Amino acid sequence: MELSRDWVVGFVDAEGCFHVSVNQCPNMSVGFQVLPEFVVVQHRRDRHVLMALKRFFGVGIVRRNHDDRDCLRIRNIDGLCKVCDFFMAHPLKTKKNVDFRKFRRIVLLMQRNRHLTRDGLLQIVDIALSMNTAERPALEKVRQELLQAG
Amino acid sequence: MELSRDWVVGFVDAEGCFHVSVNQCPNMSVGFQVLPEFVVVQHRRDRHVLMALKRFFGVGIVRRNHDDRDCLRIRNIDGLCKVCDFFMAHPLKTKKNVDFRKFRRIVLLMQRNRHLTRDGLLQIVDIALSMNTAERPALEKVRQELLQAG
Repeated sequence: MELSRDWVVGFVDAEGCFHVSVNQCPNMSVGFQVLPEFVVVQHRRDRHVLMALKRFFGVGIVRRNHDDRDCLRIRNIDGLCKVCDFFMAHPLKTKKNVDFRKFRRIVLLMQRNRHLTRDGLLQIVDIALSMNTAERPALEKVRQELLQAG
Repeated sequence: MELSRDWVVGFVDAEGCFHVSVNQCPNMSVGFQVLPEFVVVQHRRDRHVLMALKRFFGVGIVRRNHDDRDCLRIRNIDGLCKVCDFFMAHPLKTKKNVDFRKFRRIVLLMQRNRHLTRDGLLQIVDIALSMNTAERPALEKVRQELLQAG
């Protein structure tokens, strides 16, 4: 199955998720690991669409998500840069575009290794906290810890 | 905002719903009314997308759905024929296409006034029962009543 660029934009406008988590990680010099990811979840009957999206972007992993759901997950920075380049050239039409722009800022900061410094990480956490609509107490806690360590 | 055809296919693959209900209606000669509808629901922050879809198809009503959700609803048969023509020319890529094809069969039967006869209505109910994944006890009950009336 071949996907057109506009189909991908329309489908991701509806089903795509740009998400950034920050987890405690004692091995990292700043004590935290930043995990940006682009995710599309589908009922497993439409796994072929996730595989087609993976081929479209040339990157990602398709696997079981939960129950009868599968997901495409793109986590590596080079892959995410490709995804970001695509959605800069072919903008999302829903308000998801606002979150995407913030997500891209984080990916670009990580590409410049800014997540390995306290100030860069704090900047990333601030952007992530302004994304999506859900409350994120864990991320808020990371922010407080970084501020106290400053 | 201008929508491309492929964007609409991608978005509807994800968010569109083709649904048929059959309600008791003593005014109708067969005692039941068939209500096919094409629905897209969005958070109200993306109402502009629903308005753009309405302009794209040249038909439909955008209104509050529930809570913070708005919806585009297309119910009239001529409008649904336009929607069906579009998705025949530009096929959905997910398994939703299977339900769409059944939905279209019902719309075409209604266009030929087959829903005004008991046999036609029974045919429509059988198709509707094979659509979507949810159990539909109300529709099953209509089917039993039609069979008993035969």
